[in-house]
Amino acid sequence: MARVVVDVMLKPEILDPQGRAVQGALGRLGLTGVADVRLGKQFIITIDGDVAGERLEQLHALAAELLSNPVIENYVLRVEADA
Amino acid sequence: MARVVVDVMLKPEILDPQGRAVQGALGRLGLTGVADVRLGKQFIITIDGDVAGERLEQLHALAAELLSNPVIENYVLRVEADA
Repeated sequence: MARVVVDVMLKPEILDPQGRAVQGALGRLGLTGVADVRLGKQFIITIDGDVAGERLEQLHALAAELLSNPVIENYVLRVEADA
Repeated sequence: MARVVVDVMLKPEILDPQGRAVQGALGRLGLTGVADVRLGKQFIITIDGDVAGERLEQLHALAAELLSNPVIENYVLRVEADA
């Protein structure tokens, strides 16, 4: 049983209006010095068996095409051994 | 300059229909053995100066009330030293 975490984030050059809204709200609620807020998605995939070799490649391909939009988003994939 | 990462995830006992949809899609696209998928949000907050003491407490309070819905979601907050 492996746990695969995929973080999907808008590319730095893409404007993030949701993050901007959160940044404004944090300021209004009294938190000072907030320079930037970016809002992304996190997928936690629990998968039977080992994740390596071909299966890991398959996961990377799916993360790049299904879980993220490669035009505007980057993804980071990490495998955590135990679920 | 500190980087604060807040991961917000539905509580385990709450049904996650988005995660379920992704699980189905991964299976249809040929990935076998996917036992579960949970979909959460990730906030990356870049903040001037140090984050400690009162400021960290303030961030925890905001993460618990503004960034997450404590009725259905859990959050994990971590501070990464350098932005």
